[in-house]
Amino acid sequence: MHTSKTIGIVGGMGPKAGSLLFDYIMKHTVASCDQEHLSVILMSFPKQIEDRTAFLEGEIQQNPAYEIGRLINKLASAGAEVIGIPCNTTHTEKIFNVIEAEYLQANFKANLLNMPLEVINYLKNECRQYKRIGVLSTNGTYHSDMYKVYLENAGFTPLIPDTDFQYEIVHKLIYDPIFGLKANTDQITKMAQQYIQKIITYFQERNTELIIFGCTELSMLNDSNLTIPIIDSTEILAKALIREAIS
Amino acid sequence: MHTSKTIGIVGGMGPKAGSLLFDYIMKHTVASCDQEHLSVILMSFPKQIEDRTAFLEGEIQQNPAYEIGRLINKLASAGAEVIGIPCNTTHTEKIFNVIEAEYLQANFKANLLNMPLEVINYLKNECRQYKRIGVLSTNGTYHSDMYKVYLENAGFTPLIPDTDFQYEIVHKLIYDPIFGLKANTDQITKMAQQYIQKIITYFQERNTELIIFGCTELSMLNDSNLTIPIIDSTEILAKALIREAIS
Repeated sequence: MHTSKTIGIVGGMGPKAGSLLFDYIMKHTVASCDQEHLSVILMSFPKQIEDRTAFLEGEIQQNPAYEIGRLINKLASAGAEVIGIPCNTTHTEKIFNVIEAEYLQANFKANLLNMPLEVINYLKNECRQYKRIGVLSTNGTYHSDMYKVYLENAGFTPLIPDTDFQYEIVHKLIYDPIFGLKANTDQITKMAQQYIQKIITYFQERNTELIIFGCTELSMLNDSNLTIPIIDSTEILAKALIREAIS
Repeated sequence: MHTSKTIGIVGGMGPKAGSLLFDYIMKHTVASCDQEHLSVILMSFPKQIEDRTAFLEGEIQQNPAYEIGRLINKLASAGAEVIGIPCNTTHTEKIFNVIEAEYLQANFKANLLNMPLEVINYLKNECRQYKRIGVLSTNGTYHSDMYKVYLENAGFTPLIPDTDFQYEIVHKLIYDPIFGLKANTDQITKMAQQYIQKIITYFQERNTELIIFGCTELSMLNDSNLTIPIIDSTEILAKALIREAIS
C-alpha cells in the first residue's frame, strides 16, 4: 500500500464531533486489516475552547480562534499533515479568518481543509438535481450567513429558518442543557426527537429537497429515520480528509 | 469545575478501538456542555504497529512494543497525563514488559493504566456474585494465559475455549479478512453474527455466568442482544481513565 498522509482532527467542539469524524474516516476507508487504515491524531480539548456561538453572539469576548489555532499547530507538531475542524461555526469569518492568520504565521506546512466549502463542492458535484437546500446550524453560523452566501453563489436556493424557529427550536435542540444534543452525547432524548420532528415538518412545508446538517452535533441524528435527504457536514469532511490523505 | 488530567489513548489496535474508548469516556462523563468534558488525545497509527497476535504466534519477528512505546511517549509529549492502551493483547507479558522497560527509560511521568488488571479489579469489586467467567480474546492473549492466571488468582473460575473453538470461531470472528470485526468497522456482518451465536451457545453449555470481552474489537458487539452478562474491557478502561483523570 502506498504511503498516506497523517490526518489531524481538532476535536472538542462538541465533545463527540471528533470521534464521529474519526468513525466516518474509518467507515469510508477500504481496509481488510488494522494496517490498511489511515493514521489519525485526534486532539479533543473541550475545556480550553470557548463556545463559538457564545463568542459570535457577543456573550463572551475571547475569540476561540486563538485556542483552536494553537491546537492546529499542536496537531501539526505531532505529525498531522491534513487537518480538519469538525465544527461549522468555527468556519465563520470572525473565527476562521483569525485562525488562518494565526497558523499561517507559524510556517504552517499542513493542509487545513474548509468544511463548509467541502460541503458546497460536494453539493455542486453530486447533488445538482436538488435546488431548495435547507440549513440547520448554530445561532452563530446562522447569523454569519455563511451557508446562505455559499449556497446562493453556487446557484442553489438556501432555506434558512426564520429567527423565532432558529432560536426556539434549532438552537435548543443543540444547546439545551437538559435535553439538547451537546448535553446528551450518548443518546437522543425524547424531547430532542420531538424537536427534530418539528424541524422536518418545518422544512417539508417549505418544499425543501435536501437539508445540510451544518452543525457537527447533528451528525448524531444521521441514523434517524428522516424523510428528507440529508448531507452531513461531518461525513463530507471525512471524505475530503481521506481524499487528501491518500492523494 | 476542578482541574482534570488529560487522557491519552494509544489507538490503532484495531482501527476502531481508540474511538470506541473515546466514546465510552464521553458516555461515562457527567457534563451539560462542551466545556465540562475531559481532554483527550487519541493517536491512531494502525500502519506503524505490527499485529500483536502475529508477533506472539511467531509469524513476525518485530515486537510491536517498540512502536507502541514510542506512541506512548509521543502522547506524553503532547500533554497526556493518564494513558490507556485499548488492546488486550498488548498487555500480555512479551509485549507489555518491553513497553514498560521502554517508556520507563525516558523519564516517563504519565500514568499508564493496565487494562486487564482494571478488568479483574472491577470483577472483584462489582461482580462477586459470579464465579464462572468466560474469556474471549485473540489467539495471542489466549496463549499467554493472561486472563486465566489473573482470574484464578482472584478466586474466579476461568472458562477458556478449547483450541479448536478458539482458532476456528473466536479468532475468525475477529480476524477474518472478509466477515471479521477488524475488516468491517462499520457493521457486524451476518457471518459474524452467526459466529457470535455459536460463541454464546458454547459458553451457555458450560454454565458460564459472565463473559469478558478480552479483545477491544469485541466492543462493537456491546449493543447486541446477548443472553449472558458481558464485561467489556474497553468500557472498564474508560471508567478507569476517568477515575484517574479527575482524581
